[in-house]
Amino acid sequence: MKVIVLGGDGFCGWPTVLHLSARGHEVVIIDNLARRSADDELKAGSLTPIVSLPERIAAWKEKTGKDLVWKSLDVAKDYDALLDVLQSFRPDAIVHLAEQRAAPYSMKSPKHKRYTVENNVSATHNTLCAIVESGLDIHLVHMGTMGVYGYGAGGKTQIPEGYLTVEIPSLDGSGPVTQEIRHPTDPGSIYHMTKCLDQELFYYYNKNDKLKITDLHQGIVWGTNTDQTLLDERLINRFDYDGDYGTVLNRFLMQAAIGYPLTVHGTGGQTRAFIHIRDVVQCLTLALESPPANGERVRILNQMTETHRIADLAAMIAGMTGVEVSFLENPRNEAAQNTLPAIARTLQDMGLKPTLLQEGLLQEVMHVAQRYANRCDRERILCTSRWKS
Amino acid sequence: MKVIVLGGDGFCGWPTVLHLSARGHEVVIIDNLARRSADDELKAGSLTPIVSLPERIAAWKEKTGKDLVWKSLDVAKDYDALLDVLQSFRPDAIVHLAEQRAAPYSMKSPKHKRYTVENNVSATHNTLCAIVESGLDIHLVHMGTMGVYGYGAGGKTQIPEGYLTVEIPSLDGSGPVTQEIRHPTDPGSIYHMTKCLDQELFYYYNKNDKLKITDLHQGIVWGTNTDQTLLDERLINRFDYDGDYGTVLNRFLMQAAIGYPLTVHGTGGQTRAFIHIRDVVQCLTLALESPPANGERVRILNQMTETHRIADLAAMIAGMTGVEVSFLENPRNEAAQNTLPAIARTLQDMGLKPTLLQEGLLQEVMHVAQRYANRCDRERILCTSRWKS
Repeated sequence: MKVIVLGGDGFCGWPTVLHLSARGHEVVIIDNLARRSADDELKAGSLTPIVSLPERIAAWKEKTGKDLVWKSLDVAKDYDALLDVLQSFRPDAIVHLAEQRAAPYSMKSPKHKRYTVENNVSATHNTLCAIVESGLDIHLVHMGTMGVYGYGAGGKTQIPEGYLTVEIPSLDGSGPVTQEIRHPTDPGSIYHMTKCLDQELFYYYNKNDKLKITDLHQGIVWGTNTDQTLLDERLINRFDYDGDYGTVLNRFLMQAAIGYPLTVHGTGGQTRAFIHIRDVVQCLTLALESPPANGERVRILNQMTETHRIADLAAMIAGMTGVEVSFLENPRNEAAQNTLPAIARTLQDMGLKPTLLQEGLLQEVMHVAQRYANRCDRERILCTSRWKS
Repeated sequence: MKVIVLGGDGFCGWPTVLHLSARGHEVVIIDNLARRSADDELKAGSLTPIVSLPERIAAWKEKTGKDLVWKSLDVAKDYDALLDVLQSFRPDAIVHLAEQRAAPYSMKSPKHKRYTVENNVSATHNTLCAIVESGLDIHLVHMGTMGVYGYGAGGKTQIPEGYLTVEIPSLDGSGPVTQEIRHPTDPGSIYHMTKCLDQELFYYYNKNDKLKITDLHQGIVWGTNTDQTLLDERLINRFDYDGDYGTVLNRFLMQAAIGYPLTVHGTGGQTRAFIHIRDVVQCLTLALESPPANGERVRILNQMTETHRIADLAAMIAGMTGVEVSFLENPRNEAAQNTLPAIARTLQDMGLKPTLLQEGLLQEVMHVAQRYANRCDRERILCTSRWKS
């Protein structure tokens, strides 16, 4: 299969590129290195020592003999160049990871809010528009978030895979009408909001232009490496622990490794969905290799393997490592606690074999967080964004 | 009240500016004249002879002694300039009409699709972001469209004013949970899709930042003038009849005036909502003068006064004027026929006194379409956009 990975240098993108290449797919990376630029802006960086994208590509060639091609362009701005790549490479599928993906980063300032909205909307819309203009039969696989459903305190109804069956009073009083709708959205940050905007775009292009689209509503990713990124240190994946890009579980792992109290925002009663990076690349591959049928509506899958309360995670890691837990004021505007009764059945039915926290956590602390602990900049750990002014 | 009208030189904007000024409100117009630039691009123009914005403002001063201020800036691009105007003028309210508003224009080409999405999303988001950054208590009144609800053939349930009560199966099997959700979206063009994107933005900024927002879901506007635009020919409002910007009823009126067969797209079984431009300015004023309370959710009102099937409108005008009806292939991707059982109660309860088709149509043909018929360019009448490639 010929696949373009938009954002193929990023945290989910790079291991996906390698996994697809290892499976024999022909991969073109499109990336403007925006994620590395954000590191420069934030004076932060990956805990793991990532090399440049050309060096990564050369190392992969050296270890496996396989070629990867990189096109440096901004999907949100360089529409004509994007269309050119589609027309010349003629991909069967596009994996779309070319979005600003951190909630705290999206809330840092008006400039960051505007960048996140403009970048993410234009990246998605340009991709859709270019697929239509190319006239090619291209399956688009997009990385969404479980956050589109919201984390309200409710929890009285189940979170489905995208579509919800509801009953609506009928106009003529003849009893309720049953209808399947997209689950209502309730984003908790500007970043999450952009993934809700994406859903609208997908709905329209699927309806009007019959595009084949899979939208993966992903939980919080943890872990660092996959079989491929472990082949050589030059292939290592990034590991973010800073207050903007560090996701909660990886941040805890790094904090444990350096003996820094685990920073829980608010009560820790927030329940969130999780998935290991190994499972991310599995899921993306499963989704890619089973495209929707012609005329099928947008396929929405929940991409997560377990849910946990943040306080329970902190307690688990504290128990494993002896580090303390520190409860900080929550910068976010969110429910103090919630449940998350979500279904995530389809990808498991398609063959996903999950790496669960119980098996992977300690290995991650030892092999990554402790190994590279000396690279940690303690000044970058805390979140400085505020949701409320 | 101090009011900024974004897009205050446009078809809905200009009469709104005059109506607000006549009622004693202090008005600043922000407009980059994008609508006039589109005329240049399309080699089309208003049937009525509109003068430049500075001339309009001078004529208003001459006739009424009232001042209007125009700031020329692009809301979608000149964020800092927009924020400056907010901080110096300190408005009580902003009327947001700064969006590309034609469905056929939005479907002309990939470039037009991308312009419509980028312009409309950024205009709305910049406005929201600037209101938050200003720290001012500003009520945002936005022009949405009835098209967000969709025109599917269904019609088994009523279209509410924004929010729909549904029943969802409960998690514990204890009977259904009743929930109020935003009505599901089903846009029929890129343009309509952008109004759905706006709804997501409003939801988030209302939830996170407690912004006061009124979203008016408007029907198709017909008519040309209001009491204020009739005061002097230099104050006349624009009248669009071209295949991109001409809305269906005004197009029929002009066709009748020049003896051109009324062009019905498809079967004419499409039911749409309508409202006269006099009522548009009344509704905007009613909405402005009754802002939502602190903490109130986004107020969504349906702004329409009647619904009609397109074929019935054509027959009505044919009967009035003797002109023929011509059925053309439908360039749109839409149901051949639909019903539109929509509620539009709140604005009438607030005091709207509608101008209905029966009273206003003939007057419009005589006083506008016939009077300026010699300005019509017949080459611009047909729609050239195609929804399907």
